[in-house]
Amino acid sequence: MSYCSTAYPKEPTAPTVQTTEIPGPESQKQLAQLSEKFDTRPCYFMCDYEKSNGNYIVDADGNTFLDVYAQIASIALGYNNPDLIKAAQSPEMIRALVDRPALGNFPGKDFDSILAKVLKSAPKGQTHVWSAQSGADANEQAFKAAFVYYRAKERGGFSVDHSNEELETVMENQAPGAPELSVLSFKKAFHGRLFASGSVTCSKPVHKLDFPAFNWPHAEYPYYQYPLDKHEEENKKEDDRCLAIVENLIKTWPAKVAALIIEPVQSEGGDNHASPYFLQSLRDLTTKHNVVYIVDEVQTGVGATGKMWCHEYANITPPPDLVTFSKKFQSAGYWFNDKNFIPQKAYSVFNTWCGNPSAMIIGGTIGEVIQKEDLLTQVNRVGDYLMDKLSKLAEKYPKYLQRLRGKATFIAFDLESGKQRDTLLATLKKNGCNVGGCAEKSVRLRPTLTFEEKHADIFIAALEKSLASL
Amino acid sequence: MSYCSTAYPKEPTAPTVQTTEIPGPESQKQLAQLSEKFDTRPCYFMCDYEKSNGNYIVDADGNTFLDVYAQIASIALGYNNPDLIKAAQSPEMIRALVDRPALGNFPGKDFDSILAKVLKSAPKGQTHVWSAQSGADANEQAFKAAFVYYRAKERGGFSVDHSNEELETVMENQAPGAPELSVLSFKKAFHGRLFASGSVTCSKPVHKLDFPAFNWPHAEYPYYQYPLDKHEEENKKEDDRCLAIVENLIKTWPAKVAALIIEPVQSEGGDNHASPYFLQSLRDLTTKHNVVYIVDEVQTGVGATGKMWCHEYANITPPPDLVTFSKKFQSAGYWFNDKNFIPQKAYSVFNTWCGNPSAMIIGGTIGEVIQKEDLLTQVNRVGDYLMDKLSKLAEKYPKYLQRLRGKATFIAFDLESGKQRDTLLATLKKNGCNVGGCAEKSVRLRPTLTFEEKHADIFIAALEKSLASL
Repeated sequence: MSYCSTAYPKEPTAPTVQTTEIPGPESQKQLAQLSEKFDTRPCYFMCDYEKSNGNYIVDADGNTFLDVYAQIASIALGYNNPDLIKAAQSPEMIRALVDRPALGNFPGKDFDSILAKVLKSAPKGQTHVWSAQSGADANEQAFKAAFVYYRAKERGGFSVDHSNEELETVMENQAPGAPELSVLSFKKAFHGRLFASGSVTCSKPVHKLDFPAFNWPHAEYPYYQYPLDKHEEENKKEDDRCLAIVENLIKTWPAKVAALIIEPVQSEGGDNHASPYFLQSLRDLTTKHNVVYIVDEVQTGVGATGKMWCHEYANITPPPDLVTFSKKFQSAGYWFNDKNFIPQKAYSVFNTWCGNPSAMIIGGTIGEVIQKEDLLTQVNRVGDYLMDKLSKLAEKYPKYLQRLRGKATFIAFDLESGKQRDTLLATLKKNGCNVGGCAEKSVRLRPTLTFEEKHADIFIAALEKSLASL
Repeated sequence: MSYCSTAYPKEPTAPTVQTTEIPGPESQKQLAQLSEKFDTRPCYFMCDYEKSNGNYIVDADGNTFLDVYAQIASIALGYNNPDLIKAAQSPEMIRALVDRPALGNFPGKDFDSILAKVLKSAPKGQTHVWSAQSGADANEQAFKAAFVYYRAKERGGFSVDHSNEELETVMENQAPGAPELSVLSFKKAFHGRLFASGSVTCSKPVHKLDFPAFNWPHAEYPYYQYPLDKHEEENKKEDDRCLAIVENLIKTWPAKVAALIIEPVQSEGGDNHASPYFLQSLRDLTTKHNVVYIVDEVQTGVGATGKMWCHEYANITPPPDLVTFSKKFQSAGYWFNDKNFIPQKAYSVFNTWCGNPSAMIIGGTIGEVIQKEDLLTQVNRVGDYLMDKLSKLAEKYPKYLQRLRGKATFIAFDLESGKQRDTLLATLKKNGCNVGGCAEKSVRLRPTLTFEEKHADIFIAALEKSLASL
């Protein structure tokens, strides 16, 4: 018995779509009511989470979709997972919700064991964690750790205290106390939508329009030809072209580059992959130029690429300085291993809650299930199966499955245009599959880690039917 | 029977301190272990939340403190509250934790009723809410709404689309797409510690040091003489002095001021109160100069000042544009009433989770208990009782209780120096009371809303004993 069968004995065996329109009439009615209080323009449909199960999401009209999007890639194990329900009903969860502690000042007796469980999911080479509330928050907290570290080095080390000039100018938002430093990111990157995370985000105007931004640089992210094994030479050239741009920006950008942040696969930006060579070369460049190396695993982390953390494919040596996470782990934050990233001054990287213990309990449990049930082996196996089927479909429909790419079940392909992609997504929904897009004209598959061959078959059948009607 | 007696039949009747050092030996042992994974420098002691009850917090050594700090002012009703335990065990909570939705795309059927309950706690005149993950996040989300609104007005209204120049420049973090606009705040303000919220924060260097900041202006916040009724004339002069600075900054700051943010009482910055006249005059100034008016109720909100939202004392007309909240409400976000603060474009103010339904369920329940149990009446009554006792102590110890000030139980006083304040706080702990400081030399009282006369008596006795030993 697979984990999926054991965990979800009542999982539907196939999608059922009963309404001609999606959202259906009941969803529309409920959305109209909700729109009195909430911006419902981006809503797909109204969900019935009580009835959703495993890899299937049910809407208010009773339509049952195979979910290959999973809450924007943020559901790891499937709906109404029994292990998470158990964690949600535990006494430590009740305490976390009812007596939510200010963890930095008043940690609870159970916090050490909660953190220890969280840390069991850390990437290879990472031993510490600092918690945040979301992916954007995690990235900004990581920037803070990076800036403190960078400035301490500039001042001559952690034993050198801030100058009076720094103490005074910082209160006026001026250098040197508030230094003119930058974080380098990449075009098409997505790292969140607050003001510093928004300044490193560079995928779509709507994420950034009307918001003041820091004048921080965007390098170019390699744009590969697929399949990778057939285009090694030109992809390596593309890596080198982009690496030269990175080094040039580090050397010339007016505000010194204190940190570099990169997604191992740019997800929102179109599922652009970075090679182990590229990721290791960035390690070498950042070490050479004294830049903090941050890997953003908010969307790529927690198993869907076939490794717990996608950058582990690159075996980066020494490991990246800070690795950020959120989404499928439910709890957010950054992993690190160098104690120098604990800030020089207590209360420097700090806030009221310092994380969310209820999310940490869920995250720790997710990591435990992945390990105990060996879900990564399954994800790799199902990913191969799915990719094989998709490759065959791509031969039949080369216009509609361009640049097919992926690791395990973390797969994407391009259509000819955004309009065509949107039509495909709408048709897929009518054929019982909830799927998401990314960038201008890409489709991204983001199933849970309990997605099996039987689900892949259903998805492939729906995709083929949808493609035939395009 | 008061709500406190009913809710906490097992609440201790007095503090007990059994260790000579705080943190005691067991706390120290556990903190040493935790420090392998977490920055424990700011930790007061290790808590036993299982044993904590009502207004009493118990530590790992079994010391039982009357808690007059309440997780940095973020516990509304007390520890192990039965109504919150019930909410934490509800099926909708289990779903919120286990099937955490991307609310903007896939809201659940129960979301409308969860939001409706949250909205029952909205300030007078506010009809909508947008949710966030923390106070800093709430303020930054509010800034985003403010900037979108401001730029739409500048462009000629919500029907005028962004220009191609805006669409292009924004991807380079440059104006006009990423406009050079500012948010005006006040010296000694605290609005959070991310990069935009950090730029409006101005209370202590440690919150800001080493972090790049936006070049945004800080006006002066009025510094009153207390008691207020005996210093009306000079305090009004102080208001006018500060209002002139605000208007001058709006008129002259190089980056146009799109929004103004203010705490009705600056809490982290020393419990500095703003008069109804000052808060209404800011409404008039912001209306005159087309500036979005944001009131930050993260610490002042949810009843401790004797009103559900502190700025309601000022009856600001028309109401502030955006009111932010977090902490004691557990769920964070901003209230608003003008539908123009729903952004022009869908997906403009957006993120994966768009809030946290588990926190919303807790927040809605807290609001419901406050109303059902009429806790504001109690908070005002107990506040008067406590202030009367403190005033008498201030006559006896005028050096140690300077500038005694407050609304209901939201009370503060100043000592002669930071060192003296810190000694008092340490002594209070030994005498069984957990109390916090703020600014350089202030003590802030932040009891829960279930704090009663009997608790005030215990606190006053401990304070008097501590003062006598200073």
